[in-house]
Amino acid sequence: MKKKIDKFDLQIMKILAKNSRINYRQLAELLNTTRQRVSRRLEKLEREGIIKKYTIIPDFDRLGYTYVAIGLSLKPGAPVDKIIETLKEDEEIKVIQRAIGYHQLIVHIVAPKNMKEIERKIHELSKKVEGLESYDISFVTDIVKFELV
Amino acid sequence: MKKKIDKFDLQIMKILAKNSRINYRQLAELLNTTRQRVSRRLEKLEREGIIKKYTIIPDFDRLGYTYVAIGLSLKPGAPVDKIIETLKEDEEIKVIQRAIGYHQLIVHIVAPKNMKEIERKIHELSKKVEGLESYDISFVTDIVKFELV
Repeated sequence: MKKKIDKFDLQIMKILAKNSRINYRQLAELLNTTRQRVSRRLEKLEREGIIKKYTIIPDFDRLGYTYVAIGLSLKPGAPVDKIIETLKEDEEIKVIQRAIGYHQLIVHIVAPKNMKEIERKIHELSKKVEGLESYDISFVTDIVKFELV
Repeated sequence: MKKKIDKFDLQIMKILAKNSRINYRQLAELLNTTRQRVSRRLEKLEREGIIKKYTIIPDFDRLGYTYVAIGLSLKPGAPVDKIIETLKEDEEIKVIQRAIGYHQLIVHIVAPKNMKEIERKIHELSKKVEGLESYDISFVTDIVKFELV
């Protein structure tokens, strides 16, 4: 049984979800504690994988990209692990989420602003996914909120 | 017309998408340039909003939470801006994506591991969204990949 996290861990993570580039000194000030205590906790959260990743949310429009969210429904018994391994290597696939429910895989791709190119990419993707039943496509026009903790 | 970003900007952002806590010195080393050049560029990317946010991806299981992705289909003419304003304030709604296509809104919620509680939350959400046609629910079991640049 893995250790549960406490309220202090959660406070650190909530601050980092708003700004993951904040330094130890600022974190310590916000939490009214010492740099040492903050750095020790943060290292633990990283080491144990409770914080899986520090990353950025870009403005896709400014990057000149189209951001497409694709929800995949798989046939019963489709080899999910194998599909994920295949998709993981694809540079244009930026997000892969494994799920149960309406979709069993959610994939985000980023492609140049060229609908022919996007069509090609989605066609390529659909051929790569063994046991694909159907998929739904949404073009993300804005990420209004993103704070996972 | 806003300035386009160049290859150096993109290199910086790709590194930050993998680890947004990397410091100027490390960034400069990786890019074989000076700290000054890196910090100047990064400040520009932040100021112009090309980097919208620095954030973290947590392990939801370890946090004791269930992560639910809900794709919303709205009736034609539904007041998307107003809906977003209402949902934004909700602490349990962690991600809001505006979209066109199959879904017009994609919302991620994080709730305790209690199906009754999740049912209540989704019910509450569906009542808040004016002009909701239908919604699809997927329970995200793992974020396998997340690098938006």
